[in-house]
Amino acid sequence: MKQIIDHTGHQEGAGVTVHTTDKLASSALGVSVSSSDEREIIHPQFLWGKIREYIHEPASEFFGTMILVLFGDGAVAQVTLSNGEKGGYQSISWGWGLGVMLGVYASGISGSHINPAVTLASCILRKFPWRKFPIYAIAQLLGGMCGAAIVYGNYRSAIDVYEGGSHIRTVPGYSSTATAGIFCTYPAEFMTRTGQFFSEFLASSILMFMIFALKDNNNLGAGPLTPLALFFVIFGIGACFGWETGYAINLARDFGPRLVSYMIGYGPHVWTAGNYYFWVPIVAPFFGCTFGGWIYDMFLYTGDDSPVNTACLGLRRLITPLRRKHHTSETHV
Amino acid sequence: MKQIIDHTGHQEGAGVTVHTTDKLASSALGVSVSSSDEREIIHPQFLWGKIREYIHEPASEFFGTMILVLFGDGAVAQVTLSNGEKGGYQSISWGWGLGVMLGVYASGISGSHINPAVTLASCILRKFPWRKFPIYAIAQLLGGMCGAAIVYGNYRSAIDVYEGGSHIRTVPGYSSTATAGIFCTYPAEFMTRTGQFFSEFLASSILMFMIFALKDNNNLGAGPLTPLALFFVIFGIGACFGWETGYAINLARDFGPRLVSYMIGYGPHVWTAGNYYFWVPIVAPFFGCTFGGWIYDMFLYTGDDSPVNTACLGLRRLITPLRRKHHTSETHV
Amino acid sequence: MKQIIDHTGHQEGAGVTVHTTDKLASSALGVSVSSSDEREIIHPQFLWGKIREYIHEPASEFFGTMILVLFGDGAVAQVTLSNGEKGGYQSISWGWGLGVMLGVYASGISGSHINPAVTLASCILRKFPWRKFPIYAIAQLLGGMCGAAIVYGNYRSAIDVYEGGSHIRTVPGYSSTATAGIFCTYPAEFMTRTGQFFSEFLASSILMFMIFALKDNNNLGAGPLTPLALFFVIFGIGACFGWETGYAINLARDFGPRLVSYMIGYGPHVWTAGNYYFWVPIVAPFFGCTFGGWIYDMFLYTGDDSPVNTACLGLRRLITPLRRKHHTSETHV
Amino acid sequence: MKQIIDHTGHQEGAGVTVHTTDKLASSALGVSVSSSDEREIIHPQFLWGKIREYIHEPASEFFGTMILVLFGDGAVAQVTLSNGEKGGYQSISWGWGLGVMLGVYASGISGSHINPAVTLASCILRKFPWRKFPIYAIAQLLGGMCGAAIVYGNYRSAIDVYEGGSHIRTVPGYSSTATAGIFCTYPAEFMTRTGQFFSEFLASSILMFMIFALKDNNNLGAGPLTPLALFFVIFGIGACFGWETGYAINLARDFGPRLVSYMIGYGPHVWTAGNYYFWVPIVAPFFGCTFGGWIYDMFLYTGDDSPVNTACLGLRRLITPLRRKHHTSETHV
Repeated sequence: MKQIIDHTGHQEGAGVTVHTTDKLASSALGVSVSSSDEREIIHPQFLWGKIREYIHEPASEFFGTMILVLFGDGAVAQVTLSNGEKGGYQSISWGWGLGVMLGVYASGISGSHINPAVTLASCILRKFPWRKFPIYAIAQLLGGMCGAAIVYGNYRSAIDVYEGGSHIRTVPGYSSTATAGIFCTYPAEFMTRTGQFFSEFLASSILMFMIFALKDNNNLGAGPLTPLALFFVIFGIGACFGWETGYAINLARDFGPRLVSYMIGYGPHVWTAGNYYFWVPIVAPFFGCTFGGWIYDMFLYTGDDSPVNTACLGLRRLITPLRRKHHTSETHV
Repeated sequence: MKQIIDHTGHQEGAGVTVHTTDKLASSALGVSVSSSDEREIIHPQFLWGKIREYIHEPASEFFGTMILVLFGDGAVAQVTLSNGEKGGYQSISWGWGLGVMLGVYASGISGSHINPAVTLASCILRKFPWRKFPIYAIAQLLGGMCGAAIVYGNYRSAIDVYEGGSHIRTVPGYSSTATAGIFCTYPAEFMTRTGQFFSEFLASSILMFMIFALKDNNNLGAGPLTPLALFFVIFGIGACFGWETGYAINLARDFGPRLVSYMIGYGPHVWTAGNYYFWVPIVAPFFGCTFGGWIYDMFLYTGDDSPVNTACLGLRRLITPLRRKHHTSETHV
Repeated sequence: MKQIIDHTGHQEGAGVTVHTTDKLASSALGVSVSSSDEREIIHPQFLWGKIREYIHEPASEFFGTMILVLFGDGAVAQVTLSNGEKGGYQSISWGWGLGVMLGVYASGISGSHINPAVTLASCILRKFPWRKFPIYAIAQLLGGMCGAAIVYGNYRSAIDVYEGGSHIRTVPGYSSTATAGIFCTYPAEFMTRTGQFFSEFLASSILMFMIFALKDNNNLGAGPLTPLALFFVIFGIGACFGWETGYAINLARDFGPRLVSYMIGYGPHVWTAGNYYFWVPIVAPFFGCTFGGWIYDMFLYTGDDSPVNTACLGLRRLITPLRRKHHTSETHV
Repeated sequence: MKQIIDHTGHQEGAGVTVHTTDKLASSALGVSVSSSDEREIIHPQFLWGKIREYIHEPASEFFGTMILVLFGDGAVAQVTLSNGEKGGYQSISWGWGLGVMLGVYASGISGSHINPAVTLASCILRKFPWRKFPIYAIAQLLGGMCGAAIVYGNYRSAIDVYEGGSHIRTVPGYSSTATAGIFCTYPAEFMTRTGQFFSEFLASSILMFMIFALKDNNNLGAGPLTPLALFFVIFGIGACFGWETGYAINLARDFGPRLVSYMIGYGPHVWTAGNYYFWVPIVAPFFGCTFGGWIYDMFLYTGDDSPVNTACLGLRRLITPLRRKHHTSETHV
């Protein structure tokens, strides 16, 4: 931003757009906002300012994922509990689609990952610093849990009415008035284990492929329209690949709320349902996102920050000592 | 705008975009357009020009809220009175969503609040001048009333047919062909008082959190896409948290039309329905919007105009004499 | 455009955006593109280039209105003839909404009016040259007729199946398998004449009010998002005020196709239906659009091109000799 | 991009937007990105970098078409196999609409054709090099086939359940539980051959007319909103002209998946159904797109790259030796 202001002020008026675009292009979903810039904006002379400086990025991921789960789980809750009177399946596609869109808007400070699998793929393929991965993943998980808890609080009396009592909480496949599906995904009955995994893997691959395409300014590039385009990506995954496994494609949005539903009292069925399905949406998105991103980089991406555009497709990095590489990547960010 | 033109004219061509963006970023939903700029555009040499100079901002809020209620109440009216033949619940989500979007476009002159709770949160958290709060609130209320009256005028014969006579006007819970729900919200039957309040509080919090996120250019920032993003916010609140209390989240959009429905002849049930529910959508949005905005500022916002980014989280302001503070804030605007 | 290129070339890269924005702001739906610019682009050295120079603007309005009617009437045809299997009422709202959006994109050359009532309001309130009004209106009418004829050609066999024979063509109110509603609007049965007129008047007022709001850069201004915002305006009018009279709000989109349906053989009922309803969507939009635009100008608009911002609210213009006024307005364009 | 940076650096900040817009305006759907620019970005010092330099554009078309078919066929699969529980006809309109939108984003490197008929029209009317036509068409066809195969893999068990066995694969018209319609289009039963052809021809014409309108910056021009506007175009064609023949309008999206469905084991009925309908969506789009594009150029387009804006409407090109023309066009690109 400094550069723009230094340039004899011509760009002052346009600064806002420029800023947005620039940030979106260089940071969102790829590389985090460089903290040196922020230090000037944050107010470290006050205690809270100092604390917030450290929690700014995790807080951003936390709230982004919370917004995502609030809208997503909220949409499923409203459709389920009102017996389809206040929305149908399309309403759920809208809910998750706009949940992602608004979650991305809410978490631009930290690069708008709101999904541990996206963070992982960014670490592997876009030089996002590895040391941030656990912090981001935990913040996202907590955000998902918090969102699910709020949705439960809001729909508690409606769940009581629907399930038939305030102590009855049931899981799909074990009851005809199950409400556990509000919080996390349960697969369709006819699905094999391979089919479950493939469905989640495919949806995650498409997600990451499209994120990298939308962020790539040597391709068309969505620029400031990226959050809107992500609405269409998620809506599309819901409308086209959402039936079989409920398109979790995100540990924080599925495992987090599942944990909450277990705490609330839905019982051990949340883990055993679908033949211990619960680990699929934990594992598959990591593989899917990395694969989808790698395919994009392999065939379409020409930026220097992807390992496939370095010597030996980046395999040399795996061989040479890791310490020096880490050093380099951190100074780049 | 002056600055841009003075800068050796380079930005002339780009002026239009710049202007829009700039206005959106600095004024909409936060700080009103500085009146010194407008004085040059308005034509005070004519009587009407002089009068309009004083009523410009209230008029803008009036028409913005009127547009909001026209589309919102209109959508509910069409769905209700046609027995769902000309639209379903999703149609109502569209109506309120685009009502807000178009209302925001119509009222950019005054900062596009179209909701007293948004004005209040802007006063508390964004240095919006307190003296404008009552003017804005009254203009918004009158706009909501006017919109509801027009909708009634347009659907009068259809209401007669639906209710079964031109003198029959009934309220949900007291009749199976009630039409009072066209104008304002009535809660679902199973809701407790706490649940009602929490539902409105939650929806208002999400609204304000997202408005501040969309306006924050140190976050991703929606820039000129803000009205479109607000469509998704309102659509989402409708699709995900709209069932239980009808997501009033706005005094002007609920109390205004409720008053009109009382005047029209829906009787005292408009006040007593849902165990005197009517005060919830008056009170809850003020608390919800302020809380949602405060959460955003506390954890994510770094701008100087929020009290949480000043000494002692702005609490000092409450202690030191108010007069001097007022003086400062006004010269800023 | 010249200005931009002359400015030492700084804006070359940005030229495209700027151009689009600039054109949208200054010309679309208000003032036509100045022909002096186009003369340099058009190729008058060839016969067709010379001819096209004269028909460029009418052709643009023709195709814009044709696109509007193609999508709008097409949507109604598909929903009606497939008995709601391939779309419902919402599908019709989409059809007209995107018909307007894409029609506006197709006719930017002539200012994207695609509605005689919009042209009239532009003449009265935005100094659009009066001499162009008849040319625009005829081009729009022909475009609407052409679009309706193509829709008929495409759905001919489906209409035969639906009506029960290739020579049977019936009008709503006279048959349970009527298909005339595909082409133009017929009012709901319970509507009084006053109600019909008011419904069309109201929808047209909202349309023009929103067009002026979206085009006003001293308000928020939609800039390059204007066509998208118009999608929401039309979708909203359809979802909120579309039931009672079918929201014609446009002579070219209603009278044009009605004429075509009469020619095709739907018989004199197309004129007599609804107690000679046919003249309402011809007359009401002119009054509605002018009123809606005037309200906007009266309370919110500060631009010099509106008569309400001149001495005596422009009434002086009506008094002083018209010839000189015409002269002035033309040199402005 | 060089130009912008050389201009004393004023535009650095705005570079990203500018770049996107510029690319969209000059290359997407018209002329491919000049390879001289890319050579600097691609890394030819590595073997894969060298290979990718040659396959970059076909790979881009391959993945763009694959994304299109993944979402489009996926939407049809989900709606069909879940018996409409997880989406209805509108869901299919969304699927194809956003499939095109996201396919366009994914294939900006090659100009986002993702349709052989669009490539042909670009060759004829926008000087797109003819030598690229076969490469593009093959890449698009393979992309469509690959997308259909993935959809089949994902929905295999659901198809087994729906058809009633893992070896039963049936075609519409020959079975009440046919699933071949997931992959390619089959016409409605009442359609004549002429009607089938006209329906595909009309939809293709509208598509190409709108693409040229959206890309024409002397018209309104959609600029960076083009992919979003294309969503509305495809959604509109689906909602308004999609019933009779299923709006294939694309060889790669219909013939490719049809071939895959034949390989999978749907039998020779995929070719014989609808009285050997299969050739219509192969042939009609080429004529339709060329006609629609020609109409646009004839009446509205003023750019130099269209043959209708050269001497004798470009017919001279057909007469004079082709070799020299080819030479010229290649140096231009």
